[in-house]
Amino acid sequence: MPPTDPLLLRAARREPTAVTPVWLMRQAGRYLPEYRALRARHGVLELCKSPRDAAEVTLQPVDRLGVDAAILFADILLVVEPLGVGLEFAQGEGPVIHRPVRSAAAVAGLAPVDVASDLGFVFETVRLVRRALAGRVPLIGFAGAPFTVASYVVEGGPSRDYVHTKRLMYEAPDAWHRLMAILAGATAAYLGGQIAAGAQAVQLFDSWVGVLAPDDYREFVLPYTRAVIAALDGAAPVIHFGTGTAALLPLMREAGGDVIGLDWRVDLDAGWAAVGHDRGVQGNLDPVALLARPAVFRERVKAILARAGGRPGHVFNLGHGVLKETPVEHVRALVDMVHELSAR
Amino acid sequence: MPPTDPLLLRAARREPTAVTPVWLMRQAGRYLPEYRALRARHGVLELCKSPRDAAEVTLQPVDRLGVDAAILFADILLVVEPLGVGLEFAQGEGPVIHRPVRSAAAVAGLAPVDVASDLGFVFETVRLVRRALAGRVPLIGFAGAPFTVASYVVEGGPSRDYVHTKRLMYEAPDAWHRLMAILAGATAAYLGGQIAAGAQAVQLFDSWVGVLAPDDYREFVLPYTRAVIAALDGAAPVIHFGTGTAALLPLMREAGGDVIGLDWRVDLDAGWAAVGHDRGVQGNLDPVALLARPAVFRERVKAILARAGGRPGHVFNLGHGVLKETPVEHVRALVDMVHELSAR
Repeated sequence: MPPTDPLLLRAARREPTAVTPVWLMRQAGRYLPEYRALRARHGVLELCKSPRDAAEVTLQPVDRLGVDAAILFADILLVVEPLGVGLEFAQGEGPVIHRPVRSAAAVAGLAPVDVASDLGFVFETVRLVRRALAGRVPLIGFAGAPFTVASYVVEGGPSRDYVHTKRLMYEAPDAWHRLMAILAGATAAYLGGQIAAGAQAVQLFDSWVGVLAPDDYREFVLPYTRAVIAALDGAAPVIHFGTGTAALLPLMREAGGDVIGLDWRVDLDAGWAAVGHDRGVQGNLDPVALLARPAVFRERVKAILARAGGRPGHVFNLGHGVLKETPVEHVRALVDMVHELSAR
Repeated sequence: MPPTDPLLLRAARREPTAVTPVWLMRQAGRYLPEYRALRARHGVLELCKSPRDAAEVTLQPVDRLGVDAAILFADILLVVEPLGVGLEFAQGEGPVIHRPVRSAAAVAGLAPVDVASDLGFVFETVRLVRRALAGRVPLIGFAGAPFTVASYVVEGGPSRDYVHTKRLMYEAPDAWHRLMAILAGATAAYLGGQIAAGAQAVQLFDSWVGVLAPDDYREFVLPYTRAVIAALDGAAPVIHFGTGTAALLPLMREAGGDVIGLDWRVDLDAGWAAVGHDRGVQGNLDPVALLARPAVFRERVKAILARAGGRPGHVFNLGHGVLKETPVEHVRALVDMVHELSAR
């Protein structure tokens, strides 16, 4: 625990804070000109694999925005590359997996992941960032949750209907369970390594889990997310996030997490009640609201803070990542607004 | 009311039925070889505008599947063409609107819709289908709900983040409200015309409404959906459908509908409780389940029927449309299964 006892870590323990802590998913990202300048010269994987560059990108927004946490610059698919599925970030196309995994044989053919050697560059980034932050704000590490990572591995890229993923689940459940066990094991080791290197909290991104029926989540996903969180054994607070999860929140809570991430599709108070008040919640402004004038989104920020009701355990965030069209000065205005409006 | 007192209409009135009625969104669609054969020769708009062809497509699945209703073959964007926004169905690309509406000036420039002259071909299709059905099963008419139609008109096509739609809503609320009022008026007249021509029930598709925060739904959408449903004044049962709506169900109920459509992301019993048991519900099998073997999806059908608990007012359907990859024999097996497993 750094000497300043950071707001974010206190909120994650549901301790009272003088103001509501705020950080933003994708606060290091394409809406920042200094990030775009780096990306013009380097691919995503290349940036991630250069600890100096990744640390720079992680730090870019911290002082500029006045946020209460840094979030590691990395990609949820880094853990997938050592599996040997042919991961590539095509120019302007998002991730492509050249050998998608859609059968028991394909699952059996996956190479083992040794996080220390395969993902050591991430741990080095964590160390560099911690040193540079010098205790100003805590550093959040992260990984994709097993379902969301599996969905890319099976589909071969982003998807709309998740047809291949669900087919594997329904038609070859043994293969599905083996794939999820492999990803859960690698993810637990990966997050454990980030924490050992200095990450003070971690977020598990189950970004696309909202495409599942609750019964499917319970049977095919929950045990693996629970295994990842249980393996960390409280070494750092865990934020467990997904989108489209209004009906999944009680099950996500069951899987674990000190703080459950809410997207904007649910009222924060209703979402917190579904999660249970013995956990924290994070969220939940619609990222599109940040494209409007600050006077317009100020009313929305007020409404979210009112729904949180000053209850300890609320971390302010968007409901998903900052959109690339977002004006930087709006992001800065949001951070100031949250601090101003939540001052107790 | 036709002499046979159709299952679907009884269920919509929450009257007991001998078996649970079942029909499928997109039951007339790309998974059917006879539909693909017609589409190889005609565009979507061309098919819709030929009452003989549209009636044929509407009827194709009825006997083949044994469903309890026919659903009009049409497109939710037909109502948009008379506005003069340049609607086109590009080959394999989905709908494109060449002059998207993103300002007060653009809203002011929309041409008036005269449904009798602009959409008379749809009413003619309804008459042809009713005659051909000769009372075997009822015919469901449909329209897009104002929000979902507006989202295409503003975005210019399908969208992921609905940035333009929400920006108009947030930054130019007067223009947004005018656009919604125009669409609500045209939609009410359009559905009224379908009912007058013989549609025995109508479904209002608010397919993409699940991208909204509940507060936004209440302010920017609910009044217009309510106006459409209220204008029909009980002339036919209304099914009110959306996806990703777990947190919106009480508000959708407030907007209206005899039956509220549920997607697969919510447990049917929890969804029905959120809607209220004084309304019916429709749903809610994940369309991807139909790609698995019938022995696999049979268990899911059983689970959905168990959650409905034999309560009058359940219409079985998928949680969204039939996917184009779906084997026809699986769809037939589903219909038989629902009838067999729900027999009282």
